Formats: sequence, structure tokens, C-alpha cells
Amino acid sequence: MTAKIKAGIVGATGYTGVELLRLLSTHPNVKVTAVTSRSEAGTSVADYFPSLRGIYDLVFQTPDEAALEQCDVVFFATPNGVAMNEAPALLAKGVRIVDLSADFRIKDIAVWEQWYGMKHASPDAVAQAVYGLCEMNREHIAAAQLVANPGCYPTCVSLPLLPLLRAGRLQKGMPLIADCKSGVSGAGRKASVGSLLCEAGDNFKAYGIGGHRHLPEIKQTLSSLQDGIADGFVFVPHLTPMIRGMHATVYLHLEDGTRPDEILREFYRSSPFVDVMNPGSTPETRSVRGANLCRISIQKAAGNENVWIILSVIDNLVKGAAGQAVQNMNIMFGFADNAGLQQAPLLP
Amino acid sequence: MTAKIKAGIVGATGYTGVELLRLLSTHPNVKVTAVTSRSEAGTSVADYFPSLRGIYDLVFQTPDEAALEQCDVVFFATPNGVAMNEAPALLAKGVRIVDLSADFRIKDIAVWEQWYGMKHASPDAVAQAVYGLCEMNREHIAAAQLVANPGCYPTCVSLPLLPLLRAGRLQKGMPLIADCKSGVSGAGRKASVGSLLCEAGDNFKAYGIGGHRHLPEIKQTLSSLQDGIADGFVFVPHLTPMIRGMHATVYLHLEDGTRPDEILREFYRSSPFVDVMNPGSTPETRSVRGANLCRISIQKAAGNENVWIILSVIDNLVKGAAGQAVQNMNIMFGFADNAGLQQAPLLP
Amino acid sequence: MTAKIKAGIVGATGYTGVELLRLLSTHPNVKVTAVTSRSEAGTSVADYFPSLRGIYDLVFQTPDEAALEQCDVVFFATPNGVAMNEAPALLAKGVRIVDLSADFRIKDIAVWEQWYGMKHASPDAVAQAVYGLCEMNREHIAAAQLVANPGCYPTCVSLPLLPLLRAGRLQKGMPLIADCKSGVSGAGRKASVGSLLCEAGDNFKAYGIGGHRHLPEIKQTLSSLQDGIADGFVFVPHLTPMIRGMHATVYLHLEDGTRPDEILREFYRSSPFVDVMNPGSTPETRSVRGANLCRISIQKAAGNENVWIILSVIDNLVKGAAGQAVQNMNIMFGFADNAGLQQAPLLP
Amino acid sequence: MTAKIKAGIVGATGYTGVELLRLLSTHPNVKVTAVTSRSEAGTSVADYFPSLRGIYDLVFQTPDEAALEQCDVVFFATPNGVAMNEAPALLAKGVRIVDLSADFRIKDIAVWEQWYGMKHASPDAVAQAVYGLCEMNREHIAAAQLVANPGCYPTCVSLPLLPLLRAGRLQKGMPLIADCKSGVSGAGRKASVGSLLCEAGDNFKAYGIGGHRHLPEIKQTLSSLQDGIADGFVFVPHLTPMIRGMHATVYLHLEDGTRPDEILREFYRSSPFVDVMNPGSTPETRSVRGANLCRISIQKAAGNENVWIILSVIDNLVKGAAGQAVQNMNIMFGFADNAGLQQAPLLP
Repeated sequence: MTAKIKAGIVGATGYTGVELLRLLSTHPNVKVTAVTSRSEAGTSVADYFPSLRGIYDLVFQTPDEAALEQCDVVFFATPNGVAMNEAPALLAKGVRIVDLSADFRIKDIAVWEQWYGMKHASPDAVAQAVYGLCEMNREHIAAAQLVANPGCYPTCVSLPLLPLLRAGRLQKGMPLIADCKSGVSGAGRKASVGSLLCEAGDNFKAYGIGGHRHLPEIKQTLSSLQDGIADGFVFVPHLTPMIRGMHATVYLHLEDGTRPDEILREFYRSSPFVDVMNPGSTPETRSVRGANLCRISIQKAAGNENVWIILSVIDNLVKGAAGQAVQNMNIMFGFADNAGLQQAPLLP
Repeated sequence: MTAKIKAGIVGATGYTGVELLRLLSTHPNVKVTAVTSRSEAGTSVADYFPSLRGIYDLVFQTPDEAALEQCDVVFFATPNGVAMNEAPALLAKGVRIVDLSADFRIKDIAVWEQWYGMKHASPDAVAQAVYGLCEMNREHIAAAQLVANPGCYPTCVSLPLLPLLRAGRLQKGMPLIADCKSGVSGAGRKASVGSLLCEAGDNFKAYGIGGHRHLPEIKQTLSSLQDGIADGFVFVPHLTPMIRGMHATVYLHLEDGTRPDEILREFYRSSPFVDVMNPGSTPETRSVRGANLCRISIQKAAGNENVWIILSVIDNLVKGAAGQAVQNMNIMFGFADNAGLQQAPLLP
Repeated sequence: MTAKIKAGIVGATGYTGVELLRLLSTHPNVKVTAVTSRSEAGTSVADYFPSLRGIYDLVFQTPDEAALEQCDVVFFATPNGVAMNEAPALLAKGVRIVDLSADFRIKDIAVWEQWYGMKHASPDAVAQAVYGLCEMNREHIAAAQLVANPGCYPTCVSLPLLPLLRAGRLQKGMPLIADCKSGVSGAGRKASVGSLLCEAGDNFKAYGIGGHRHLPEIKQTLSSLQDGIADGFVFVPHLTPMIRGMHATVYLHLEDGTRPDEILREFYRSSPFVDVMNPGSTPETRSVRGANLCRISIQKAAGNENVWIILSVIDNLVKGAAGQAVQNMNIMFGFADNAGLQQAPLLP
Repeated sequence: MTAKIKAGIVGATGYTGVELLRLLSTHPNVKVTAVTSRSEAGTSVADYFPSLRGIYDLVFQTPDEAALEQCDVVFFATPNGVAMNEAPALLAKGVRIVDLSADFRIKDIAVWEQWYGMKHASPDAVAQAVYGLCEMNREHIAAAQLVANPGCYPTCVSLPLLPLLRAGRLQKGMPLIADCKSGVSGAGRKASVGSLLCEAGDNFKAYGIGGHRHLPEIKQTLSSLQDGIADGFVFVPHLTPMIRGMHATVYLHLEDGTRPDEILREFYRSSPFVDVMNPGSTPETRSVRGANLCRISIQKAAGNENVWIILSVIDNLVKGAAGQAVQNMNIMFGFADNAGLQQAPLLP
């Protein structure tokens, strides 16, 4: 048996942090050696997350105490604005990094600063970073030292569009609409009235109607793949009363004669994590709960031959966050694609 | 005090039936004198619905036993295909009817038969029926003997569009997309695997992707209000893991220079049941839970000036079913608009 | 029509506050003239609670701005420790008060201070206060200037026990166990990780295992009704993943020959808000959702003739808080018992 | 690598069936070679359970078509009454069986027939069967050909009591009360009004108050471990609005001087699937979601020194059903205890 690499997690007290811990607990090639949290330093992981009792005997440390520079890979599961300050020192020491925050996702610094409302601390690292949508950038990820793990909405929307955009099949000048629905865990594990069970439960609403931060991220992907499509893009996120899961309903116009189902099947033929279902299928979020999967279907709208409808589901915490981060790590280190990612979805 | 009218409810064991009973229990002008159910004949309403203990001492009767012809108004809360067979005899005796099923909603009998998969038993009654979208057809409803209470999706989608269509402001040739989300009570109170808590809970999915029965109903309304719009209409319903509530996100194109917010405010200025919220607002379903309200906002899409977004919420069992039925009855009998409909939404 | 009394609500931004506003909106004898909130002063009620748009045009004021002393009745819907400081000045001006917090519930000041961890600011007011369990203290409430509205658990547990204790039928020396389950709204509308949908949803747990503040409150009631019973009392609260609703399962031992079902029926024969169901019934929380009701059943344990089981349900925000507060006000002012409390439960 | 054993699942379309498929999909020593369903014969597993797309390429067969006799082990995930008819033929051919239904759990045939309302078809098999509470009967299970997998409530209640009963520490003549709460998946995947999201959601109630079938099963375990305890046993199950999870709150009396926490820790010191938490802990169901774990704590009741309180949680579908079945198989075949059972709980 080969030695395991050492992994560190910065900011491991949130939902993406505990999800990384869950997934890595069965990874054959990785040992988590450091978890940091400023607020919980000194607390054991097992006390903080009773679900991990008996699995980890780690204790949260401050970032200073933790010997992150001795890790082979460090995951940042931190709020936006942390990794851009802390990653460069680790990069300088040769540590490879997967950042689950938004710090390195947007190449245009001015755009990032506008949407995230702060000055970027390390534009050089942005330039160096590879956008970690695995099915789009696999080769670059393999060689990358710094991977910017995509947002959940961008993953759910971009994966089904990727093959069509690559093939240049979207019709210019027509609207491209992504009506997206997310479980509440997307809001993270922080005290907030809006995420209370009594506020978000038994309720449905749109949010971010004035512009959500994942809008420029998706537009960047669109622009990089097919000219003239990003301008027509509309994105409305909604909050749905469930814990995990994300559903994108995408309304699009394709060039005449396009057979999108075939394009998607061909593109994802050998992808273990993207499942192209038959036209007419309605993928449901629970069919990917806890698993690093995206399930997709595409069909014409009933009663309007000009509009195509994509349905796309992911678990926002797995393929939309921690799972894709592990997938990125697997690519970076040459591990098996599905190492640590073999669990079947939890249903019901 | 004037005498109360007598109301009967046919098929009162479902969710729209129990909701009618709840709303009518505080109606100052109505006394429910007959409730029918073939399967539960002989059972008391209070035993069947413990929530109504102490409120009703009625017993379910078979339709034959119940003296429905002595009622002033009869509500049909039955599956599709029942009212078209049973309503004509009551109409002949002068009883006024509000049908909550789909039997009399579609004027084109061929279209109805295609979508509902059966032969229509009383085309004459269809011709006579008034489509009971109260804010659209108030005068006709007042004079009607037979009102076809609209479906939940058609109510939620049509109310915000109505003023814009009346004003002829929708742009032809462009898609009009209604991405709708419904709580599970829309599926009714029948044993069905798909509606189990363990199937529909903590899950989100589209359904009816090949064509939902509310599609022709909405198209009929669109066609009646502005030419050339129905063809571009796209409708995708989704199931969201909550009990009550419906949310429509409508993507539309308006003629240049349209000020839709002003048009909606003007149109609904004196409507007690349609609430036009400020642009930028995100109405949430719980803000109408249990109440006969539709809350609406309209704004331009962030990042795409050509697309407008309507957000519209109702309680599918109230304004989307039983509440609108009571509202129709109030109009038919000249009662106060808000009689029986004054309860504030239940929040949280 | 007689003039309405003026009511004020202190601390109206929480769940009991908005519930008071909902219930009072249909009360024939009351007009809410002042609502206070330090944090939201200047915000309109309708902006803060969109469910109340079109119903109230009040604006939150600071306690100083609001002319509370001109109210006939003031409800305190504040955290513990507020009313004891602010109520005395209003009492001195003749205002009648219903306090929904715990400040005046416990007669023994030392016990209160121990459990609530602060010095009591107005022991005199405690002495003057009447414990507002309506079905127990109706006469005293009618004459009271200050009513201490009971806690939710004490209401749910005490109502079914009250007739048995009054009749002296509980067996001494045997355990009296209340295993209670509450919806999450009992934790209030404050940002707290433990009440997030992602923490409290799809989860069940006990809490307060080391001693919950409602324990001494229930013991005080037990002691006042039958000697020697409080010592055997055991209380374990649990959190259940729903918004509203409380269920108590009480295990008790009765003197030989007791017919508890008859005692309960007789005691509550003319009580509009306590519903004694048949033995064998299993009252469910949704059967009282939104209504000022307590439904009860009592039966022997299957397989153990010595143990009796009481099942008791309330809506924690209504009969367990705001509804009982309105009921107390109705008694204090001689209004009809059910004024403002006539709504049928919301089901489903 | 050693060859894998062949496993069959009879009745694999329910929740315990799909859970077996999930768990066995990562088992290093097992290959599922046959799944049967009379109603779904001919349907592929992946079509029926989209969560298993890409994991299994099995097709449901009728029991006759499936070559179950060629399996090394067959799991019965069938309704009560099926295994007792079908298991004997397989036993005769040397197949080892784990039955997840209740057919072989109760040794006293008369008791079984009374509670299950049918004549038992194979009393001989009952005599041969080993009750598969792994931590109680490990040696017998290892040698067994037929294992009766325990019910969910019996597992959740018996595991924490087992060490105390073995040590003879329960006090006779005093009540032993198990107040239990289950997620809705315990009711299985069958169309039933009571399990609809709109009936069971946002609701809490007791059920089976007149006697639940798991009562005699628990009593049998109690009787086998300590004399005179079963008579005082009281069991009340409740339905809680969540999918997975079970919580038992057990009220008990112990002999003076007992240190139950120490007894439990000692007993379960080397058990990988029972986690004794510190007194004062409140184990929550989500801390075991998806995992084959039982977490326990025990402490004295606040305010009543005579009563002890056990809190015990399992995932009813895992340690309460399919997980324990896999654990039984592991013991029977000498596999590693945690083979196929290594997944960390899914949280949130």
C-alpha cells in the first residue's frame, strides 16, 4: 500500500467542511491531518460533529498552530475573502490547494471586486488558478497547484450546457434562462433568521433577484465556451424547504437540427459523475443525495417547439462543493476518479 | 340578521373539501347543510377531520341521500369527471354551482377531451359555465349559475399576467415561460407512493414535463386576452417539499416602454385579494398561507434588460381552490367580497 | 357597536408577537394601537411581516415613543427579564397586562432567580400576578390586573392533569412522567444555529435533559393542586422537526377505581378550548394548528394495567402562548370566550 | 482477492430493499445476483430506483425466475407472512437467510399468531431461527442458518437495556417505559394516506396506543435477560415528521448503587456500532443518519433521583433494518464487522 497524502481543511466547522470530512473518511489515498477553526480551536471534531464520533480523533486548531504547510493538499472551506489572504503563503511552500470559496473563481478582478464587495488580496493567484469544473478543465486541473472549486449553481447549470456550448449549438440573441432551486444548506451553517426552520420551512421563495454572485461566474463559463451567449443569460435562484439538493431548470434555444441529447450522451459517455437520462425523465434531487453526481435530461417544451428544457440536479454539498473538491484532488494527484466518492445516494 | 344560504359540498373528504369547510365555518352568510362522500357515508365530519371537532356536527351522506337540490349553492370538490355528470340535474332545479374540478373550465370540448382522456358528458353546461377567475370575470360570475373554479397553476400564472395582456403589452413571437413550484397538497388526499413524505419530502423535481393539464387552461386565458401570445407559452410545474403554497416565476418580454408595475398597481388598486408588491420584492408562499391572497412583484432580470420576471405566490388550497370558490360564491350572491375570507395568513 | 379597547404589544417582532397580531386582527373588541420593538423602530409591521400586508398599518416604535400607558391592555411578548422591569410603571397607571414571558409565573422568587439566572426586579408584581392557566384560574384572572401567561409545556401538561389533581386521584410515591415534544417555533425567532432548518430539520432529539425552566413552573401547579405529587415529576422535552405544535405523553398512576376519562369530560364539559377525545384516540398536533385548542385523551397502557397514558396536544404559539393570552384578555375584560379565537385549525 | 458470495434480495422494491442494495453496493465480499419483486418483474433496478443508476444492472425477477437457491445468502425484505412460506425451501437447500420481516422473531407461536393475525406456516423454522440482535447473540448468529433480524423499535430500546438487564440491575415492580419516536420511513414504501407528506408532515402523534407488534418482541428480549421486568414494560410509539431516524426515551428504575454508565461503557467497549455517549449528552437522530450505529446516553432525571433516563437513537432503516441485516451476514460469514458498513453518517 502506498503512503497516503496529508490533507488539511481550513475552516472545517461549516457544512462543506464536515462534508469534506465525511467523504475523506473513506478515501483510500488521503489522511486528514489538520483541521482549523479560529472559533473552535481546542474542540475535538467528534465533540463538534457527533456524527463523526469514532471516525476522527482530530482537534480543531488555529490556522497558526496547524502545520498546514506540511500538508500535500489544503482545502479552504472558508467564507469568501479568507483564502485569498492565506493561500499564497502555502502556495509558496509548494502546497496544492483546492479553494471551495469564491476567491479564485473569477478571472476579471474588477468584476470579482464589484460582486464580492472587497479588494482582492492576491490577483496573481487568481491568474494562476484553474477553474475546477472537472468535466470542463480536467487536463488543466491535473497540472494545477491552485484549483478554484466552482459554486453550486454554476456547477448545476454549466454541466448540462457545456457540451452544447462546446459544439456551438446555442442560438444567439435568444434568452437563456436558468431557474434554479436550492436546499437551505447552500446558505451555510451560520446563525441567520432567514435559514431558521420556522422561516425557511414549509416555504418557497426567490432570492437574489437583483443579482446573485453566481451570475458572473456562470457568465464567465458561457463566454469562454461560445461567443454571444452570456448576454442573454438570466438567472433566478430560489430557496426550497429541504436540506440538500439543487435543481436547475434551464430554458434554451438551439440551432436548427441540433440533437442535444446525443451531444450530451457522447460528451459524458465516460464520465462517472454525469448521468444523462432519457428525454422525458425528470431527475429528482434525492436521486443524488450524498453522492458526487449530476443527473441531466433535455427535451423540447410541451407546446412550444422552439424552446428546449434542461433539467439538472446535484447535491449542492457534494458535486456542488465538497465532492467536486475531492474529485479535483483526485485529478490533481492522479488518484482513481471515484476514490472517496463511491457511496450510493441515500434514498429515501 | 338575514337568513343564511344553504351550501352543499360534494366530495368533501379531500383537501379542497376540508378547506371549504374551514373557510365556510366563519362565513356570516352561509350554513353548510350537506356534505357528501360515497366512501365515507355515515361517518361524521368531526370523526373524519378531527380538526373540525366542535365546529360541525354534519355527517357524510351519499349524493342520493343528501338533499342537494335544496341547497342554494353546491360546491363540487370531486375528481374530474364527476361534476359533468351530476351538475346538470342540480342546475335544472335552479341550484347554483361552483365546480372546483376541471370539468367546465375548457370551452373547446375537443381540447378538454384530449387532455382529460374522457368523453365530456355535458357540453351544454360547458357553454353556460363562467370561468371563475374572479379578478377577470367578476361581472359574468355575478350572473352565473355555473362557475368553473380555475386550477391552481392557472390562477397563480394568470393573475399577474391579466393586466398586461388586457393592455396588450406582451411581445409577440417571444417565449413566455412559467416555471411553477407547488406544494404537495396539490396532488390531493389520495394514497399515492409519489406523495408519501418519504418520497416527496426533502426532494425537488419537475413533473408533467410532457404536458400538464393546466397548460391548455392557461393558454385559453392567454388567447382570450391578447392575440398571438399563447403559442409562445411554456409551462413547467415542479413539486416542492411543503404542504401548501405555490410559486410562479414567469419570464416574459414586454413591448418597449411598458411600465408593468404601474399597470399592475392600477389594475389591482381596489382588489382585496391581489397584492402588488414593490419591484425587488420576493413574495414568499408562507406570506399567504391559509389566506385567499395572491402576492405579486415584477422586475427586469438582472443582467438582461429584455426579460422581465414576475414572481407570484398563492396558497394552492385557498386562492388556488377553496378560497377562490368562496370568493366566487360571494360574487354570485352579492355577499361582501371578504366574507369568510378575512383570516390573516398563518405565519410561521 | 361598543368602542374597542386599545391594546399594545411590547416586543412584537417575535413569533408570539406576530401571532398576537394575527389573532387580534379579527377580534371584535380590540384595536391594536401600539407595537414596540427597539431594534425595528421605524419599520412598518407590514414590511417586517409581509403576511400582515393590508391588515395593519402600524409602525414599530421604541417603548418610549409608544403611548403604552394609554392602552387598556398591554401584552409583553418579550424575552424573560424585560416585563419585570417595564410592567410596574404601566400597572401604576392602571394598565392591565398579560405577560407572555416567564417573569411573573413563579411565586417563589428564590426558585425563579435560580432557574432564570437573574435577580428579580419586581417581587411585588409577582405576588400580585395571577397565573393565567385559564381553565384553572378563571375567576382570579377576571379580576386580575397582571396575568402571567403560562409556558407552552406547562399548558400542555397541566390541562389534562388539572381535573385529576383537583380530584386528588394521582397516586403518591409513583413517578409522574411527562415526555414532551415541541415544534421548533418554541425556540423563538432568533438567529441560532440549533434552530436552522439544516440542524433541526429531519432530526429528533431531547434537550434540556439537565433541567428545563418549565419544570419548576409545572411543579408549582402540581403542588398547588394535590400534595405529594410534584416530587415524583419527571419532565423531558424533545425537539421535533416541525414548525408549530406540541405533544405531551404523560405516564401516570391513579388511585384504584379512578375513571379518569369521566373526570376529564365532566370537568371540561363547557370549556370551549379543551377537547376530551375518546380513550383510544391519538390526538395529533395538526388537528389544533393555528387554533386555541387543547385536545386530550387518556387510556391504560397496553400490557401494563397500572400505568395510565395521557396524550395532549396544543399549538405552542396559540393555546401555548398568544391564543391563551387573548383568552386571558377576554376573561379580564368580559368579552366572549371565543372572541378572536374562532378560527378553525389549518389542516392540512 | 477471495471470491465474493452471492446474495439475493426478496422483495427489493421497498425501503429496506433499496437500503440493502445501497449498503451492499460497497461491500467487498458480496455480489448481489438476484432481486425479486412480483409486481416489478422485468423492470431494471436502475429504472425503479434512479439513485442506483450506474451502480446495478440487475433486473427484478419473479421469485420463481430468480435462482435464489444458488445464492449463499438471501435477505427477505418482504411484508410479514411471506418469508415463513418461502424460506423453508431455501433452508432445505442450504441457503442462509436473514429475514427482515417479523416472521421468525417471536419464539412463542401463539403470541406471534395473536399479534400478527395469521396462522404461522413454519413453526420449525421459528425454533431454528436466531434472533439477530447482533450485540446480544453474536455467537449464535455466527452459527445460524436463519437469522430473524430485529424490528426497529426493539433494536433501539433493547440495545441500551441489554447490559443493564444482563447485570440484573433493573428494579422489579417499577414501570419501565419506552417512549419512542420514529421517522415515517418505518411505515414502508406503500401507498397509504397516513404516510402522505400532507398528513404526516408538520405533525406529531402517537399511534399503536392499543398495542404495537413490537411490544411482544421487546418483552421477549426483556424476559430472556432478567426475570420480572417485562410485566412493567410500557411502550408508546409516535410518528415524527422526518424520513429516517428513531429515538427512544426510556424511563427506568435501577437497583441502588448501580452505575449504569459504567456498565454500558464496559459492555460496549469493543462494539463498533454502539456508541455510549457521556451522561448529559442528547444524541440526535441525524448523528446516525445512513449509518449502522446506535448512540446512547443515560442519566438521572432532573428533579427525581429515582428515575433514570436513557436516550437512544438509530437510523431505523440501517441499524434498525438493512444495516443490522448486513451486520448479521458479516457475522454469519466471518467477514469484517464493518464490511459494507463504513460510511459516515450524512450530516446535515
